[in-house]
Amino acid sequence: MIVVMKPGATKAQVQHVIDLVREFGLKDHAIVGTDRTVIACIGDKRAVDKGALENAPMVEKIVPILAPYKMASREVRRERTQISFGPSGAVLGGPKVGVIAGPCSVESREQLLETAHAVKEAGAMALRGGAWKPRTSPYAFQGLHAKGLEILAEARQQTGLAIVTEVLSAETIDVVTEFADVLQIGARNMQHYPLLEAVGRCGKPVILKRGPSSTMEEFLLAAEYIINAGNPQVILCERGIRTFEDYVRNTLPLAIVPALHEQTHLPVLVDPSHGTGHAAYVAPMSLAAVAAGADGLLIEVHRDPEHAITDAAQQINHHAFSAMMKRVKAVAEAVGREA
Amino acid sequence: MIVVMKPGATKAQVQHVIDLVREFGLKDHAIVGTDRTVIACIGDKRAVDKGALENAPMVEKIVPILAPYKMASREVRRERTQISFGPSGAVLGGPKVGVIAGPCSVESREQLLETAHAVKEAGAMALRGGAWKPRTSPYAFQGLHAKGLEILAEARQQTGLAIVTEVLSAETIDVVTEFADVLQIGARNMQHYPLLEAVGRCGKPVILKRGPSSTMEEFLLAAEYIINAGNPQVILCERGIRTFEDYVRNTLPLAIVPALHEQTHLPVLVDPSHGTGHAAYVAPMSLAAVAAGADGLLIEVHRDPEHAITDAAQQINHHAFSAMMKRVKAVAEAVGREA
Amino acid sequence: MIVVMKPGATKAQVQHVIDLVREFGLKDHAIVGTDRTVIACIGDKRAVDKGALENAPMVEKIVPILAPYKMASREVRRERTQISFGPSGAVLGGPKVGVIAGPCSVESREQLLETAHAVKEAGAMALRGGAWKPRTSPYAFQGLHAKGLEILAEARQQTGLAIVTEVLSAETIDVVTEFADVLQIGARNMQHYPLLEAVGRCGKPVILKRGPSSTMEEFLLAAEYIINAGNPQVILCERGIRTFEDYVRNTLPLAIVPALHEQTHLPVLVDPSHGTGHAAYVAPMSLAAVAAGADGLLIEVHRDPEHAITDAAQQINHHAFSAMMKRVKAVAEAVGREA
Amino acid sequence: MIVVMKPGATKAQVQHVIDLVREFGLKDHAIVGTDRTVIACIGDKRAVDKGALENAPMVEKIVPILAPYKMASREVRRERTQISFGPSGAVLGGPKVGVIAGPCSVESREQLLETAHAVKEAGAMALRGGAWKPRTSPYAFQGLHAKGLEILAEARQQTGLAIVTEVLSAETIDVVTEFADVLQIGARNMQHYPLLEAVGRCGKPVILKRGPSSTMEEFLLAAEYIINAGNPQVILCERGIRTFEDYVRNTLPLAIVPALHEQTHLPVLVDPSHGTGHAAYVAPMSLAAVAAGADGLLIEVHRDPEHAITDAAQQINHHAFSAMMKRVKAVAEAVGREA
Repeated sequence: MIVVMKPGATKAQVQHVIDLVREFGLKDHAIVGTDRTVIACIGDKRAVDKGALENAPMVEKIVPILAPYKMASREVRRERTQISFGPSGAVLGGPKVGVIAGPCSVESREQLLETAHAVKEAGAMALRGGAWKPRTSPYAFQGLHAKGLEILAEARQQTGLAIVTEVLSAETIDVVTEFADVLQIGARNMQHYPLLEAVGRCGKPVILKRGPSSTMEEFLLAAEYIINAGNPQVILCERGIRTFEDYVRNTLPLAIVPALHEQTHLPVLVDPSHGTGHAAYVAPMSLAAVAAGADGLLIEVHRDPEHAITDAAQQINHHAFSAMMKRVKAVAEAVGREA
Repeated sequence: MIVVMKPGATKAQVQHVIDLVREFGLKDHAIVGTDRTVIACIGDKRAVDKGALENAPMVEKIVPILAPYKMASREVRRERTQISFGPSGAVLGGPKVGVIAGPCSVESREQLLETAHAVKEAGAMALRGGAWKPRTSPYAFQGLHAKGLEILAEARQQTGLAIVTEVLSAETIDVVTEFADVLQIGARNMQHYPLLEAVGRCGKPVILKRGPSSTMEEFLLAAEYIINAGNPQVILCERGIRTFEDYVRNTLPLAIVPALHEQTHLPVLVDPSHGTGHAAYVAPMSLAAVAAGADGLLIEVHRDPEHAITDAAQQINHHAFSAMMKRVKAVAEAVGREA
Repeated sequence: MIVVMKPGATKAQVQHVIDLVREFGLKDHAIVGTDRTVIACIGDKRAVDKGALENAPMVEKIVPILAPYKMASREVRRERTQISFGPSGAVLGGPKVGVIAGPCSVESREQLLETAHAVKEAGAMALRGGAWKPRTSPYAFQGLHAKGLEILAEARQQTGLAIVTEVLSAETIDVVTEFADVLQIGARNMQHYPLLEAVGRCGKPVILKRGPSSTMEEFLLAAEYIINAGNPQVILCERGIRTFEDYVRNTLPLAIVPALHEQTHLPVLVDPSHGTGHAAYVAPMSLAAVAAGADGLLIEVHRDPEHAITDAAQQINHHAFSAMMKRVKAVAEAVGREA
Repeated sequence: MIVVMKPGATKAQVQHVIDLVREFGLKDHAIVGTDRTVIACIGDKRAVDKGALENAPMVEKIVPILAPYKMASREVRRERTQISFGPSGAVLGGPKVGVIAGPCSVESREQLLETAHAVKEAGAMALRGGAWKPRTSPYAFQGLHAKGLEILAEARQQTGLAIVTEVLSAETIDVVTEFADVLQIGARNMQHYPLLEAVGRCGKPVILKRGPSSTMEEFLLAAEYIINAGNPQVILCERGIRTFEDYVRNTLPLAIVPALHEQTHLPVLVDPSHGTGHAAYVAPMSLAAVAAGADGLLIEVHRDPEHAITDAAQQINHHAFSAMMKRVKAVAEAVGREA
């Protein structure tokens, strides 16, 4: 890390910072510039709270040099991580662009099975569906819970599709892990650390969604929590950030796809359903995500969106999904991927 | 809610929407304007997913009219809620501006007791201190856990100050409730619904911090979760939002203080420590928060911020806190409050 | 527009609003709901300042129904506008994805000509290059001014490429119009209305860049200014918005491409150079923009980016541009466009 | 500035960067850390485009150390700048908190004079009123232009208040300068550099409003443009930034008040009318701004806000202004200022 002193800092004030730096077990290296003195600190700085130096007199700012995550970073692992799951050994992170599709919520057995067959037919590699739903309002439908998991398992049996479903709390991890092939951590829980640690011990791949106001660094630190707890099978998923834009529910920042590929070896999905909040934008943003280099897509598909119980505005119907998949395939091939 | 049709919507398309509206148990009222038809929907719309209508053909947008929260709203309760807690019956939400102060983390018995006496002396009404710490990095200090609670309890015994501490997960609610006078839900957990429901059953007052990208409506819906689970003693706390600004760790939007007082009867605190992230801005933003009408402040105070283990950059020392409290008192009186 | 009254509004207060509505020349239509009264206002509301009603007692909010722009909207013109320019009649807004490329600044005759030939060879339809540069710092290079225009004209003569250059102020419009085929309004000037009105009278096509914190509506209203002043040849360009993200200079929100195509008949470009600020992300975001449906791209290309005088971090070299163009062509074809 | 190399950079790649640094006339100082090499560059770096280094192979990032502004900074001038203007020599930047008040637009002679007397009576130090109005829509009222200036001059003569009015374009600077005591640059024009340079030559004090998505650094660089063109009398004004918040028109980030006082010697105003967009929040945010240390306020006041032609929602009436002024005075005194 680099400590930048304010102009006019005295020798004693610089020495005080150097003393703190040494106290933290780092080596110091002071450089006297034309206007300011800066102190480069050498050593493994991940354990130091940089704020401690920020509070010393006449310190202007602290500039971290090292990324605070390790195991998620490409410095530790150069080659891309491939993660396989489900009855048929679907793989994310390889040459194939994988599409995970299904309804926002499992609403009924009939509803889920109908959509499961439709997305399988259209070329999806896995089925998503929520059994526990995090809802902004306490008065909204909260999911079928264990019953939903059983319906998902039946859909897997009928279609051979892997099952992806969200886990909302540490208490339900065991039952979700028993049924699901991949556990999903929702955007609202990206920094719920007890849950990250719990899925770190579950032994199944985890889709980690980026929080709507998380920086890339916070996103990768959340992945680091899971890996650090023992589970290296983390799949990152961008689902849109909160900005001032009002024609979408979230702003979908696709440059994070190449940026993540630079920083981490983990596979990167994009969720254009939450990422836009409008059914009409799901197909164009799916194509854009694949063109930007995404390893896969997470798409909300419902047999009758007008009657969907949750997220109705952003679910597309079976026909639209099938049409979109043909276009996804064409774009994937145009950028040298399979689909 | 109001459904706005796109220009050129046919009679059949308008009728289709009207049919959906009736299916949802609402009364419809269509108004044909010069360019567009709008359909006003009358009835209790809180249970309907408005997205279901957004997905119907030729619907341009849905405009909700009712706020989706009830019990947190001033429509249900006109007078301000006052919440009292702790050995001496401290009250938030009344004429007095209450200051809750203490270190970010409980680091040791000696450290906490020293600060407890200092903030008591300076006029604080309660002592804060973290025993379980939500940390962005898995490699950072995570708190003293149960040992920290015991130290807090000793501080209460010595000073008579009420104890405020964060609860991170449903599993630790029982032990935290046993020791604390007020439970705090951190900003990262504002939408962790299982935790909101759990503190809704704990019987102690709860400080709910606004998530850094939450709208005011989402904030009040999170409060609604707690109230709906049985606990009406919710204290709201603004602690800064994430924006593009880079001279602060968060942007502290104080207009939410009068805006919340308009919408809700619950007391409103401001946390200028997290709300700015810099010790130098804590005092001016504390004064500003009180001038804007805040019912109280939540301030991080450490006996030696340069050696604080967590949040070192934003903690102020005992002397700065004591000086600030005199100014808080003067501003509180200038705006007709006590302090 | 819809006026929503607060709960508890009296009959007299509702009547007062109705009187104001009639005073503004609108027809009123009151609907009494279970909790609130809403008043639908019928008529052409573009001329009314809705704030006037917001300030009336017991008004909760005003919901506009009509978009405030007209001539830019698809309601006025259903088919897409195609805009042609330059010696060879290049067209934007048709089936072909058009690429406008060139250096950030015209630095010298040799530099510009070398890049002009390179981008022509690689398949660009027009040459960009700044002669007047809006610079954040007064100490930075401000452009070659008239000399730069002459160099651009020579490049057009040698290559047949149309010339695109920025106009910074009303005083320089005449000279810029004399040399350029297309005038560009930079993001910082999107709401500099005297300039919008001036280019509205210039008779040449105008590329209007979205301001970094402009809503889609403000963007289309800026286009409306130009059209309203007499110039229907407006090309919209998304170049990234300001958010909290820190791995890019701006966040590039590609969902605006399909959203604009829904709202307006004007062609839509994307500028991934400013839209990301990093050379490494220009190619993936170019492909993504085309996949999302963009009508064209605006790319900064420099023969030696390490020695570029302006925007060095985001310019790509000739070789990278040529390689990217092959991939752009493949993606354009995959989504049914030419390139 | 500091250049951070990626891990794995070769000696030759480091040397290449060092060569570039020397080519830019800077001294280099390489520090080999445990994971990375960083190169400290010493010298006056304001003229170098740091992007040039960002584009060199294996460079991870560039960290600027020096602020890019000079004359606006406290490093150049330690004591606070006081700016005086108008017939009675009103001063901003001294002990007194100055309030500038008046209608958004000059609508008529009678309207302006009535408000001028009212704000004078209530204790304002200057009168604001727009003669040229920047309007988001081309169909909205654009101001009375020269006629408006004459009315403002008459109000000055009657009341002795200094006149503050916005200048929208370089063409109208001469006439505005002739009538006004203080010229205002609106938020949308904060980065319209030709206008900044023009007011830099006008000889009158300038109120520079922060753009809604400008960083503090960009704000101070805009001030630097004006000072650099010859006019040191710059008054900074915060008027709210664009964020995701929806209960206000803009988010008013008051921590910028102490932050600006740290960085610059220029006076700092706050405009809570634009900063919130709602009349109901103007008084509490005015008090908060004064408590945070603002040198003055800019307030929109209208004799009949329901009939205001522009910005009706955020203007307060004479009575509300007068009541607010008493409270402003009390808070100013509580924080050791006059009012």
